[in-house]
Amino acid sequence: MLLQNNLLAERNRGWFEAKRITALNLVSSPGSGKTTLLEKTIAMLEGRPPVAVVEGDQQTMNDADRIAATGAAVMQVNTGNGCHLDAQMIRRACDELDPPDGSLVMIENVGNLVCPALFDLGEAAKVVIISVTEGADKPLKYPNMFAESALCLINKIDLLPYVDFDVDACVDAARRVNPRLEFLQVSATTGEGLDAWIAWLRDRCGT
Amino acid sequence: MLLQNNLLAERNRGWFEAKRITALNLVSSPGSGKTTLLEKTIAMLEGRPPVAVVEGDQQTMNDADRIAATGAAVMQVNTGNGCHLDAQMIRRACDELDPPDGSLVMIENVGNLVCPALFDLGEAAKVVIISVTEGADKPLKYPNMFAESALCLINKIDLLPYVDFDVDACVDAARRVNPRLEFLQVSATTGEGLDAWIAWLRDRCGT
Repeated sequence: MLLQNNLLAERNRGWFEAKRITALNLVSSPGSGKTTLLEKTIAMLEGRPPVAVVEGDQQTMNDADRIAATGAAVMQVNTGNGCHLDAQMIRRACDELDPPDGSLVMIENVGNLVCPALFDLGEAAKVVIISVTEGADKPLKYPNMFAESALCLINKIDLLPYVDFDVDACVDAARRVNPRLEFLQVSATTGEGLDAWIAWLRDRCGT
Repeated sequence: MLLQNNLLAERNRGWFEAKRITALNLVSSPGSGKTTLLEKTIAMLEGRPPVAVVEGDQQTMNDADRIAATGAAVMQVNTGNGCHLDAQMIRRACDELDPPDGSLVMIENVGNLVCPALFDLGEAAKVVIISVTEGADKPLKYPNMFAESALCLINKIDLLPYVDFDVDACVDAARRVNPRLEFLQVSATTGEGLDAWIAWLRDRCGT
């Protein structure tokens, strides 16, 4: 099943390349703030590039409804008992979404720091989000996800005064797993640090 | 594989019954505060009943080291690529731990709000922990875990002033999935609400 997924993921990768689409796979625990981050990101990008979103959850249309309110194209995928999105779900969603050439496809994976690491979706990169309300040792306890990601967003930094979270320890832990991992500190709620994230996205998309 | 797990789980259940051991399966997202909760719980129970702990993580001994510092018996299980504990891991850990008759076995599952819902460990009950830094709609988005649990601990209530989390909405959402679910609001960090949790545990253990 993993092998079959890997083949379909490469097919997705070619499909995205042909359309000069940048696809990013956003992975994290539940509640790390992925949907709020996407809402702010779509608004700040102002259509340069256009954004389409694939929302993964076991159940509900809640996140798709939130993204639709931003005006971006969105497709909700409910995985039922499933713990991750797979490559076939992404291709079906993209066939429906029909994102324009040169656009950015943001895939919000099921909130799960374990299983989505094993399933390539054909994305250009994984972005792992960790919130400062989680523990700084998460990268060591769940190493696959951090090893597979290109960028780590440390989110909810507005809550740092109220929690016991050592940002440097988190970065050190993640770098032990993946020395090439980049980091940005942000608060999707207050907007702090999001300019750097938008710049990272535009650089990645070549826009 | 699920069927095989279910058979082994029933064998565990009989093993626990024979020893009048209460086994609880603690499930949540990563970073909900399970280990801190266990540290405080072990201290507050003062050996009535005695506690043994099985710690599940993909990697590291960090949590077991924290529990060992409390004086409780503990066994770390590293699941590698695995996203959940299974019944065989629990039996092997309990054979090593050899918890005394009448004790409480606390199983801290891998931080994952999806997969552990599908794997019975032979526990008396699942306890799901959600922190107020996650979204109040999590019970609808990840319904299996809330449907399978007997008690929901709403943790980190000391952070309520700083986050946008509607406790009533969370309870309503969880009750739609599981009308019999009980709730306790706690802060493992400050100790608020833990007396009720200790009372719940003692009632469950008959001590």
